[in-house]
Amino acid sequence: MRVLGIDPGLTRCGVGVVDGSVGRPLSLVDVGVVRTAADLPIEQRLCLIATGLEEWLDATSPDAVAVERVFSQHNVKTVMGTAQASGIALLVAARRGLPVTLHTPSEVKASVTGSGRADKAQVGAMVARLLRLGEAPKPADAADSLALAICHIWRGGAASRIEAAVAAQAAAHPSAQTVGVRR
Amino acid sequence: MRVLGIDPGLTRCGVGVVDGSVGRPLSLVDVGVVRTAADLPIEQRLCLIATGLEEWLDATSPDAVAVERVFSQHNVKTVMGTAQASGIALLVAARRGLPVTLHTPSEVKASVTGSGRADKAQVGAMVARLLRLGEAPKPADAADSLALAICHIWRGGAASRIEAAVAAQAAAHPSAQTVGVRR
Repeated sequence: MRVLGIDPGLTRCGVGVVDGSVGRPLSLVDVGVVRTAADLPIEQRLCLIATGLEEWLDATSPDAVAVERVFSQHNVKTVMGTAQASGIALLVAARRGLPVTLHTPSEVKASVTGSGRADKAQVGAMVARLLRLGEAPKPADAADSLALAICHIWRGGAASRIEAAVAAQAAAHPSAQTVGVRR
Repeated sequence: MRVLGIDPGLTRCGVGVVDGSVGRPLSLVDVGVVRTAADLPIEQRLCLIATGLEEWLDATSPDAVAVERVFSQHNVKTVMGTAQASGIALLVAARRGLPVTLHTPSEVKASVTGSGRADKAQVGAMVARLLRLGEAPKPADAADSLALAICHIWRGGAASRIEAAVAAQAAAHPSAQTVGVRR
């Protein structure tokens, strides 16, 4: 499964693509940042982000897209731009019919480091280790986008395994009540 | 000049189109709302908003687009969705090469009612009067989008007249220093 992770932002939008499945080694496909200049009008910045993300989707053909969920309590000064960039990320992925999932920052941190409160350095170090890189990808937005992709592969995998187990149980005992699984 | 105003929102995106120029009567072209169901995934809602706005641009061929500026201090619960919808509005307009301008809610209220603190009923009543409608357009998002379009026509017109006067003065007195006009 190939996942493209997006850490949305107006100035720097981290993009990281990872191949992998649960229980097997992960591999880095590509990582980078879509940047827009702060002195451009907002509508031009959003166009550049949309075009930049579309180029990444064309170049890497992911099976799914994972986007970081933005919360309004974080950094009020930049949150509006981050929310707009995340809207663009969701739109360009959904318009191509790709499955899109939002993950919270603490879900992502917990997935790759074991702690939902890990700092940027810990996330970067674990991403480098999991993908067998010599050092943490820079800037932090790039490392975060890879952590998102890894989180998605692992969480998606776990949900699929639980669903498969529930389906198998339902098939073996057709009268048993199937327990719903929330993704 | 034909202006399409957008009052962005995830559940209701007001869209109003007005023809007019400064000092001449305004006329309503069309008004409505792009709605999306609250139980749909966010990426599908943003797709529906993008497609809905594109249909409005196709159907009415505006010369310019005016979008309400969203502030993070307003209604924290819905601000993220509103910001994402506004990002989509800016993107679809800019991708067609249309000039896009953001106006604050108080600029819009002041333009149509004379007071930056006017309430929804006052804005609706003035929009109805300026466009010679029997009653205020409903819902309020629709009336607000028309107020945005009217604000843009009047403010754009004023800026153009000042620029024209400055240009005329510069042409008459080539050695005089031209005063910059901030739009």
